[in-house]
Amino acid sequence: MADAVQAALELCPWLTVERVGDNVVARTDLGRASRVVLAGHLDTVPPVGGNQEPRVEDDVLFGVGAADMKGGLAVLLHLAGTLPHPAVDVTWCFYACEEVEQRYNGLRHLWEERPELLQADAAILGEPTGGRVEAGCQGVLRVRITLTGRRAHTARPSAGRNAIHRLGPLLGDVADYQSRSPVLDGCTYAEQVQVVEVGGGVAANVVPDRASVLINHRFAPDRTVHQADEALRRMLAPHLEPEDDWEVVESAPAAPPALGHPLLARLIEVTGAPPRAKLGWTDVASFWAHGVPATNFGPGDPLLAHTPGEHVRADQLEEAATALDRLLRADP
Amino acid sequence: MADAVQAALELCPWLTVERVGDNVVARTDLGRASRVVLAGHLDTVPPVGGNQEPRVEDDVLFGVGAADMKGGLAVLLHLAGTLPHPAVDVTWCFYACEEVEQRYNGLRHLWEERPELLQADAAILGEPTGGRVEAGCQGVLRVRITLTGRRAHTARPSAGRNAIHRLGPLLGDVADYQSRSPVLDGCTYAEQVQVVEVGGGVAANVVPDRASVLINHRFAPDRTVHQADEALRRMLAPHLEPEDDWEVVESAPAAPPALGHPLLARLIEVTGAPPRAKLGWTDVASFWAHGVPATNFGPGDPLLAHTPGEHVRADQLEEAATALDRLLRADP
Repeated sequence: MADAVQAALELCPWLTVERVGDNVVARTDLGRASRVVLAGHLDTVPPVGGNQEPRVEDDVLFGVGAADMKGGLAVLLHLAGTLPHPAVDVTWCFYACEEVEQRYNGLRHLWEERPELLQADAAILGEPTGGRVEAGCQGVLRVRITLTGRRAHTARPSAGRNAIHRLGPLLGDVADYQSRSPVLDGCTYAEQVQVVEVGGGVAANVVPDRASVLINHRFAPDRTVHQADEALRRMLAPHLEPEDDWEVVESAPAAPPALGHPLLARLIEVTGAPPRAKLGWTDVASFWAHGVPATNFGPGDPLLAHTPGEHVRADQLEEAATALDRLLRADP
Repeated sequence: MADAVQAALELCPWLTVERVGDNVVARTDLGRASRVVLAGHLDTVPPVGGNQEPRVEDDVLFGVGAADMKGGLAVLLHLAGTLPHPAVDVTWCFYACEEVEQRYNGLRHLWEERPELLQADAAILGEPTGGRVEAGCQGVLRVRITLTGRRAHTARPSAGRNAIHRLGPLLGDVADYQSRSPVLDGCTYAEQVQVVEVGGGVAANVVPDRASVLINHRFAPDRTVHQADEALRRMLAPHLEPEDDWEVVESAPAAPPALGHPLLARLIEVTGAPPRAKLGWTDVASFWAHGVPATNFGPGDPLLAHTPGEHVRADQLEEAATALDRLLRADP
């Protein structure tokens, strides 16, 4: 993938192309007053439900990654090859391993190894957003909570304390959780708390002394990871005791919509649709963590990502390309 | 173990010794009016907390299996070797694999292959009971309940339904369970419902569509396995839906105290202590399933079984041996 993209970009004499691992970065250097990064990941999730074989029906491309995000990559490549004189300098960034563990993420490697390649005034990620700006992104906090008890024989449970039974009221509170939904730059970020894993048990005859849940908490960009952790602890405090364990397994900060930035405000204008909040986590947060306001905008239905019926339509590609073309030709 | 026991029993000319697999059965054949089986299992659980090395301190034997049930075996062997003329015919039964899966159980193999060897009017299991009759035994029902839901991305949980969250109220009801405790032949059988295992989860970003609990239900001898299953279903019905799964993983019937039987009534008399209910499951149920009234009686504290500090005292062995000696010498 990286080879093919690199070869295509090297056909454009107005671009300086650099290859870093499986990542490809191509830049104009026209001395414009501002610079924008347009970025997309090269990988897809594994095929699901037989969608590894791509097929075109009429003007629709079906297959794994069609929406997430071969469609976006196609739009970026098209624009990189047809815009020798954009009104802003552009950094085209094609990176590896967004769909796997964070430590493999190509954008993260670029920030570590060649941060100067990503410096810009704003960034746009070509993730599928249905052709609307999906602003910022929510943060993620994953916490493993382990409740303790005391083992006993199941014929004499009063000699012990069942740690799995202790999960009941905790799960009840999580199930009843009312989403906090702050509105930022007109976008509503609906926070979520979901138990994504539960485990416990010693043997079929033993009252178990440990039980754990893994909680996935998605939090709005008005909170830091630390604040989100504090809020979750407050919510679950009634169910926790000193011997219990609270382990933050993973966390990723949120990114604010940053729609006040002229380049991003102009993007909303050219799309002709009101922005909405990005509820999942995306690499927008990676740009924001390095001081670059960023947003998500690309062709394809985000709800189709990672599904057997994943597809993208030609008119969606054209619409996204047209909007970005207008953005990059206009003097911001 | 079986070899050593067999060799010891073959020293007694008044016994007919039979070896079946790793099980040893020795019988008197004095033409008495009634016959009693005295049985014990030869195996122990694996060592725990370094108790694999036996040691004697004063009159106390420490080590894995000291109470469960080398103590009982010692009493049975002593009596087998010192009672050439009991007032009832006696079948001494030493069997394998009581502490592992039922299908390996030596007593079960004997019932299948040589049932005539176990025919008797009553049976006594030398399990540790603190020198008191622990009458009958509770039944066991293990049920795996799987609750269903609908997968969704954790950023949009309302598109799905979290099966783990559904566990909350079910666990709450199990934790609040008030034990039904029928009294039979003066013994109180306290039923128990304990969740001994919980599991569920698809991936850290996915609202899970399945979650399961394994429930261990111990039920009193006034109910059959079927009745216990029905009662458990009624209790948990408010939390179950048609798509959910209810799988009986294992079941073992209970055994009534049967203390009206003259041999067992006489046993209570010679122990000089009121009987109490056996709350766990024992092979007493195996005898009862074949029409033989049975009870548990042996030296050692049952609460020490399977613990690092397992031990048995010499006076406990003597007390149990004396009681059984009186029982077997007397004409019932």
